[in-house]
Amino acid sequence: MIIELKPEASEADAKEILTQIESVKLKPLYMPGTERIVLGALGDEIVLHSLNITAHPMVENIKPILSTYKQVSREMQSHDTQVAFGQNTIGGGTFTVIAGPCAVENKEQMFESAKIIKKYGATGLRGGAFKPRTSPYSFQGLEEEGLKILQETAKEFNIPSVTEIVDANHVDMMEPYVDAFQIGARNMQNFKLLKAVGQTNKTTILKRGMSATIEEFLLAAEYIYNEGNKNIILCERGIRTYEKATRNTLDLNAVAYIKTKSHLPIIVDPSHGTGIRELVIPMSKAAIACGADGIIVEAHYNPQIALSDGQQSLDEAYFEKLMSELTPFIHASGKVLS
Amino acid sequence: MIIELKPEASEADAKEILTQIESVKLKPLYMPGTERIVLGALGDEIVLHSLNITAHPMVENIKPILSTYKQVSREMQSHDTQVAFGQNTIGGGTFTVIAGPCAVENKEQMFESAKIIKKYGATGLRGGAFKPRTSPYSFQGLEEEGLKILQETAKEFNIPSVTEIVDANHVDMMEPYVDAFQIGARNMQNFKLLKAVGQTNKTTILKRGMSATIEEFLLAAEYIYNEGNKNIILCERGIRTYEKATRNTLDLNAVAYIKTKSHLPIIVDPSHGTGIRELVIPMSKAAIACGADGIIVEAHYNPQIALSDGQQSLDEAYFEKLMSELTPFIHASGKVLS
Amino acid sequence: MIIELKPEASEADAKEILTQIESVKLKPLYMPGTERIVLGALGDEIVLHSLNITAHPMVENIKPILSTYKQVSREMQSHDTQVAFGQNTIGGGTFTVIAGPCAVENKEQMFESAKIIKKYGATGLRGGAFKPRTSPYSFQGLEEEGLKILQETAKEFNIPSVTEIVDANHVDMMEPYVDAFQIGARNMQNFKLLKAVGQTNKTTILKRGMSATIEEFLLAAEYIYNEGNKNIILCERGIRTYEKATRNTLDLNAVAYIKTKSHLPIIVDPSHGTGIRELVIPMSKAAIACGADGIIVEAHYNPQIALSDGQQSLDEAYFEKLMSELTPFIHASGKVLS
Amino acid sequence: MIIELKPEASEADAKEILTQIESVKLKPLYMPGTERIVLGALGDEIVLHSLNITAHPMVENIKPILSTYKQVSREMQSHDTQVAFGQNTIGGGTFTVIAGPCAVENKEQMFESAKIIKKYGATGLRGGAFKPRTSPYSFQGLEEEGLKILQETAKEFNIPSVTEIVDANHVDMMEPYVDAFQIGARNMQNFKLLKAVGQTNKTTILKRGMSATIEEFLLAAEYIYNEGNKNIILCERGIRTYEKATRNTLDLNAVAYIKTKSHLPIIVDPSHGTGIRELVIPMSKAAIACGADGIIVEAHYNPQIALSDGQQSLDEAYFEKLMSELTPFIHASGKVLS
Repeated sequence: MIIELKPEASEADAKEILTQIESVKLKPLYMPGTERIVLGALGDEIVLHSLNITAHPMVENIKPILSTYKQVSREMQSHDTQVAFGQNTIGGGTFTVIAGPCAVENKEQMFESAKIIKKYGATGLRGGAFKPRTSPYSFQGLEEEGLKILQETAKEFNIPSVTEIVDANHVDMMEPYVDAFQIGARNMQNFKLLKAVGQTNKTTILKRGMSATIEEFLLAAEYIYNEGNKNIILCERGIRTYEKATRNTLDLNAVAYIKTKSHLPIIVDPSHGTGIRELVIPMSKAAIACGADGIIVEAHYNPQIALSDGQQSLDEAYFEKLMSELTPFIHASGKVLS
Repeated sequence: MIIELKPEASEADAKEILTQIESVKLKPLYMPGTERIVLGALGDEIVLHSLNITAHPMVENIKPILSTYKQVSREMQSHDTQVAFGQNTIGGGTFTVIAGPCAVENKEQMFESAKIIKKYGATGLRGGAFKPRTSPYSFQGLEEEGLKILQETAKEFNIPSVTEIVDANHVDMMEPYVDAFQIGARNMQNFKLLKAVGQTNKTTILKRGMSATIEEFLLAAEYIYNEGNKNIILCERGIRTYEKATRNTLDLNAVAYIKTKSHLPIIVDPSHGTGIRELVIPMSKAAIACGADGIIVEAHYNPQIALSDGQQSLDEAYFEKLMSELTPFIHASGKVLS
Repeated sequence: MIIELKPEASEADAKEILTQIESVKLKPLYMPGTERIVLGALGDEIVLHSLNITAHPMVENIKPILSTYKQVSREMQSHDTQVAFGQNTIGGGTFTVIAGPCAVENKEQMFESAKIIKKYGATGLRGGAFKPRTSPYSFQGLEEEGLKILQETAKEFNIPSVTEIVDANHVDMMEPYVDAFQIGARNMQNFKLLKAVGQTNKTTILKRGMSATIEEFLLAAEYIYNEGNKNIILCERGIRTYEKATRNTLDLNAVAYIKTKSHLPIIVDPSHGTGIRELVIPMSKAAIACGADGIIVEAHYNPQIALSDGQQSLDEAYFEKLMSELTPFIHASGKVLS
Repeated sequence: MIIELKPEASEADAKEILTQIESVKLKPLYMPGTERIVLGALGDEIVLHSLNITAHPMVENIKPILSTYKQVSREMQSHDTQVAFGQNTIGGGTFTVIAGPCAVENKEQMFESAKIIKKYGATGLRGGAFKPRTSPYSFQGLEEEGLKILQETAKEFNIPSVTEIVDANHVDMMEPYVDAFQIGARNMQNFKLLKAVGQTNKTTILKRGMSATIEEFLLAAEYIYNEGNKNIILCERGIRTYEKATRNTLDLNAVAYIKTKSHLPIIVDPSHGTGIRELVIPMSKAAIACGADGIIVEAHYNPQIALSDGQQSLDEAYFEKLMSELTPFIHASGKVLS
């Protein structure tokens, strides 16, 4: 339930009601706004009715939350959430370009790649140290050694970094190395991992599962949010369909739809979303156009020697072209690069 | 096979070779260019080898066509095809906005709707007279009466018109009424209909089947092209996936991909592609951004009384917003409204 | 609406009510049963209420038809429909095995193939004369010449025959040649063709579209039924999914589900449903087990030289194995081969 | 690579070659058979060639493993694997019926449900203590308390038990409570969990991910097998498709296909595979018929009060009917209940 207090209600009034909510084992939420305080109560709504909260003199209005996801919905918060990513901000009028290799392979590769993306204006650096791979016989990543290289690169080029986390036990070890966690598509419903990340305050990019519905995607974000971590950035990365000409089907409908339903920022991964280098630029432009808050793309100083995903990685010439072609569309959308 | 002649080869040389190609029952194609004449031979390539065409003094080079579709592929023609639509042109630098009701219901509805879309700059009018409906008990359209109303409206507002054709036997009857035929998603592999339309010279919008692969889509276009009708406009209208929050999943990957593989223009239908009015504007902007040559949208002067698809139809306020928000993206893409 | 008359109601009473139904432009249905007469009224239910039929002394009960499909639903007819196929019967306790080549190629091929399938107990012969092919450059069938060969083969081996119809204009020409029409997956929503076949009395096998929902499938059957042809056999032939190890995903859930919702018989096509010869036998056994009324499989005396679908065609050894392994499962299901 | 030794080769010969394989950092596999010893070498095949193993006098033949999965493929082991499940055996001629509630709720529920399933012949008991739920606000299971109830029930009714494991850290805690682990669809690519379970010797039922390809499914099994745990039972539980009449689309093609590609046993979950109680019996019969080694179904003494999945749970009458209708199909398939 969403409980709107009267404009004249004080913080003390709010606390009184929150205590009542807590007393019947519902989860209380405190959301002070510029015009009034709004409260929330999550859990069995029948219990809430027993409290007879409408009778409280400072309560103006009570309404149910219709969506199954609650705290990440626009019903609960109508304005856009902005999330810090290092020195930058994602969401609410900015457009973010995170780029870098699929996997951290060595220092030379990371430095050379970071140099390129920074040169043309990227606002974030990606690189995987723990790689969830379909086959046990594929390269699994450099692990902590990779995190060190990523950290060193990010410092050298003064660019915020993000890397994938695959294990709830890694949270403490990984946190100091990077500016943001990424939860990959395969782990979107690894609830143990979602809760662990939710208990930190770390900016987290949550990728949509490859056949997750939009509702399941937002409920996965709700798992993180419900633990207290509000620094969530959603990421559409293509869904699995019958069409095989492209690696996945990038679902930009989902971006436009989620913008109407959730206050969280959402970025797009056109590299995995298409799997084809030539499609990354047009689909990045489409991402801006439909309302995305940024993109995350694979870029490598020499894709031909990349250990994974080389066929979808941008080289320097392509990355330059991407940034140059994006510019008029960022302007058209009224956003600024951040 | 594609047969490139030497720059000095004459039309007579070309005819000589085409006659040889025809003599072994292959389909000969004549494609004069600015620098040289290019010929094509469709059919069993083993037969072609028996001709030993490489030995002809005016042949410079022979290469196979790798894609299963031939004449609609960029291998056969590298430059963009432009197709006339009434006084306008679709493809090759223009952006088209076709709008109108799902079904022609009566003259008032058509005149009122046309007035609105014309006012804000639409370059084409749509309206269905023969409606293929999932249930035999749903409204099936006004048939020829509807075509008359559509024609009258198009004349009154001086705007080219398009309507769906569902029956090969209707070709002659329908041709005088409209500027273009549309072949709907359900009929994309109605080969009888494709061939019948292919034998006319009428501009034809071919919609992608709801679970057609890109290859099947281009092969369906090849059916029309192979009969002689080159005035084909492809239309991406969303594919069927597991996701049900939107009516279909608009596959903009397919637009960007087809642009690399085929010389035909391609437009996008964000109304059927999303099924939700609020998503039509963002997805129209995404369509321009990823390279589409136009959009076809449902618009109605009063969607609440529409007999079909009211929930995805734009009213005047929405249509005005669409055209106004599209403008900067058309500029960003370097195209002009046509 | 379904209108149950009292047990004592006469045919004259029924006619009186049917006339009333017709007077308000609803479609009247007359369904005499062993215990009582049941009537139906299809169309706008509000109109029906205006008749106040409940007030008629011979009306016992009126209830709405909840499914969108009406006449093919179990709500309208609870017992299984049985459909004649030449001398055999499909549905209601029998199990049918229709087999034969994908396409009719020549007389030798048909005679040799028919000899094999007849030898091991097949109860129907298939063979395509008009082939709807994805590419305009693929073999399109022998057309009427193929129908003559099919007819000659069926007579020689005394086995009923079925062939695909692709064009509403072919109905009269094709009817004398075969015992049943087949409407292919690509034409499941070719409403013109459905209506044309519905106006005959010919047994018709209707294949599910490759991405048709069960509801759309039953509504397509309703198009045929609504024109007067009740001799419909549904056919599940696999749906299009992300899985590419098999040609299609055979949806046996749909068979079991449709058995609860419709009175029409349903058969299974494990050849197109899997695309792999080795899977045809296990999936045929699964078809019986989940309640199907028969199978339709591709069999060829020499699949290696087949012009189409050779990789999924059964040769003699495989067909013998199929029939021998099916037998205990037919017994287990309490059905008899017909 | 698969290395077949000569029939006369001794264990000492085998060890000599395995030592060579290990010396170049390949994974050596020792597979003694009744006629001869077969060895395997997993890893970079180029390295293997450098060993020149064909030159060894006791090597008869070397061949590559063509599938991406190696140890679980029939290329590596042609005979069926049999896996112990408590006192029973799954695979290789037996048919297993595992039944029980979705979630362990309390002792009465488990005892009453176990009594019913045991009465009619079930050979395994299921019950979830850790429930991965789409929403953070849904019932998440009784956790260790639930495991205790499950263990007590299994002992009381002398029936082996299986429960879902969701966290790699739970392995040691959970192992004593149950006869088998289940890895759920959402965790099929939780590689951390797969490896943890692979390091035990516990029988493990691995469910297919809801949009996993067959290849990804077998590679997930390879992750477990590669750690040393060979006691793996695959489970097909329905895939996500566009069809919404059923909860999932049960992919029995996959069962028949996997039987040709892998030596591991595979069972079917018709409860999640259909989501509809009425379809569980026909699809269980189809499972046997297409070659499955068992089924796992939801059964509850009173589905109306179940906290989850009540609509697909069988009550006593349905469970009796299931076992009675299965019997002739188990006979038809030549298997025995175990």
